[in-house]
Amino acid sequence: MTVTDRPPDETLASLGELGVLARIFPRLPSSREQLLGPGDDAAVLRAPDGRYVVTTDMMVHGPDFRLAWSTPYELGWKAAATNLADVAAMGATPTALVVAIAAPLTTTVEALEQVADGLREACEALAPGCGVVGGDLSVSETLTFAVTAFGDLGGRDPVTRSGARPGDVVAVAGELGSAALGLSLLFTRAVDGSGIPNADLAAGLRASHPELLIAQLAPVPPIPAGVDAALGGATAMLDVSDGLSLDAARIARASGVSIALDGAALGPRIEPALTGGEDHALLATFPAKSPLPTAFRPIGRVVAGAGITVDGEPFEPRGWDPYTDWNGGAG
Amino acid sequence: MTVTDRPPDETLASLGELGVLARIFPRLPSSREQLLGPGDDAAVLRAPDGRYVVTTDMMVHGPDFRLAWSTPYELGWKAAATNLADVAAMGATPTALVVAIAAPLTTTVEALEQVADGLREACEALAPGCGVVGGDLSVSETLTFAVTAFGDLGGRDPVTRSGARPGDVVAVAGELGSAALGLSLLFTRAVDGSGIPNADLAAGLRASHPELLIAQLAPVPPIPAGVDAALGGATAMLDVSDGLSLDAARIARASGVSIALDGAALGPRIEPALTGGEDHALLATFPAKSPLPTAFRPIGRVVAGAGITVDGEPFEPRGWDPYTDWNGGAG
Repeated sequence: MTVTDRPPDETLASLGELGVLARIFPRLPSSREQLLGPGDDAAVLRAPDGRYVVTTDMMVHGPDFRLAWSTPYELGWKAAATNLADVAAMGATPTALVVAIAAPLTTTVEALEQVADGLREACEALAPGCGVVGGDLSVSETLTFAVTAFGDLGGRDPVTRSGARPGDVVAVAGELGSAALGLSLLFTRAVDGSGIPNADLAAGLRASHPELLIAQLAPVPPIPAGVDAALGGATAMLDVSDGLSLDAARIARASGVSIALDGAALGPRIEPALTGGEDHALLATFPAKSPLPTAFRPIGRVVAGAGITVDGEPFEPRGWDPYTDWNGGAG
Repeated sequence: MTVTDRPPDETLASLGELGVLARIFPRLPSSREQLLGPGDDAAVLRAPDGRYVVTTDMMVHGPDFRLAWSTPYELGWKAAATNLADVAAMGATPTALVVAIAAPLTTTVEALEQVADGLREACEALAPGCGVVGGDLSVSETLTFAVTAFGDLGGRDPVTRSGARPGDVVAVAGELGSAALGLSLLFTRAVDGSGIPNADLAAGLRASHPELLIAQLAPVPPIPAGVDAALGGATAMLDVSDGLSLDAARIARASGVSIALDGAALGPRIEPALTGGEDHALLATFPAKSPLPTAFRPIGRVVAGAGITVDGEPFEPRGWDPYTDWNGGAG
């Protein structure tokens, strides 16, 4: 978090785009692969193995976060972490981000600096060497983050969703269910009588349930486990962002197989693990004879067929869906 | 534009993210450099010369466009064209885009299909071989496009803003001032009595002033001229997006020189050329002895000093600024 002695009322409107960017740039992490950084029409990056991995994702005030619950620092952290997880899920090392932010004119410069701090510290903690090489700052009535992340495959094939084969072990690296439990706590206990998100109530939950709140608000995906999985022979992999059952079903469909999950391996929180979103764990399949990379634990088997089962029973995949589950509130 | 016989009321809410994406993907152009496209956690692209150019830009309903004036097709076209221009301004060939769209739940699938058509036709017309390799579809109360574009330098150095040297010729490829005149027409003659953008009035202007309206709503930047400039020895270059005076001043500042513009060379629309935004022309400097690439025409000289002059008189750079010039209206 940032401590400053400047007036607290400097905003995007009062300082203008260039003034704000001058404040933000020095706080951003630099990329090991950057040849030309922010300040020109475009950045130039090295692609060490002649290819690069690209993913893009938006975070929108309302469906994706509420300002009463998330700090600006956490928004920057989460915007980086979720995109880094998509790069890792290809078996790649994250190298760089570009970050576009559209913000209301009343947004304080201090809040944007804290977003930059969150971006930087997430890169430093989760993917050292990955930095922000460019971006865009726009005006909008709806605070919106659009991050595009890049990665390097180090000469390896990308690990797609379609390579799982019957007999493979299904394994996961990272938390399952905590992010959804954190969100559920916030929705039930950090809203006022009218259902509006409330910052004071959220602060109380942070004290009583720090682990679940952090999993939701500033997740720590196991980024290096993506490369470990590729090196360990993973046949398929993805980032668990919409709930294990939905995401396992995606591997099953893309690979033309069935995934048989072992309920006991999913821990005591089996329902949120299967149907809760935003875990940003890595789900991968490995040949049965390969030793699992240390970050991974087995949770099932790939078998012939289609769809997914839990303890042998068919399970209808479901998870968080902003198209049906968002109530339109922002807060 | 798209003609369909399906019910006109299919929306993002009724069809859901995956349903909408299934409709959109087949309409998107494919990239020559794509190794793995949409449908996994990330795309994989070839980087033929071991580097890649990256730029990102947002277009936000309200400050950047109004739905009463722009068709969805034009929004897709402009989102592609403006980002392609940033890639071209580095002297690179555009290779790929990723496109994130955040849209209200009431957005029709047909509108999103037309956005895809605009993206495709802009790529095909302006940068053949460039395609959409990935994206994201989110829910937002504010329709927002975030495009990240990639390019290949073909073994050349990038053309930055900082290489202009006294004695160089200042030249431009593309239109100057038309986009601003088009916007000015819309703001003065396509709004109702309360200043709200009006579609019928805009339709009338399209008929009476097609060139100016197209320059604003679906610009045609001279994308191949970027590579031509690099091959022709350009010492500095940028995309004229905020008005010639502001953008020329950026080259002057980055290069530590002054830019002396010749008013007569700016044509009859000298005021909008100097201070109007969104031209997406390419402004470049060339050694005096180099023949100019065919798309470029000379408009001035690089001289020692700072800032810019027009016919020898100092000119205070100014242009469009959404932080001060946007009135908060959407329409």
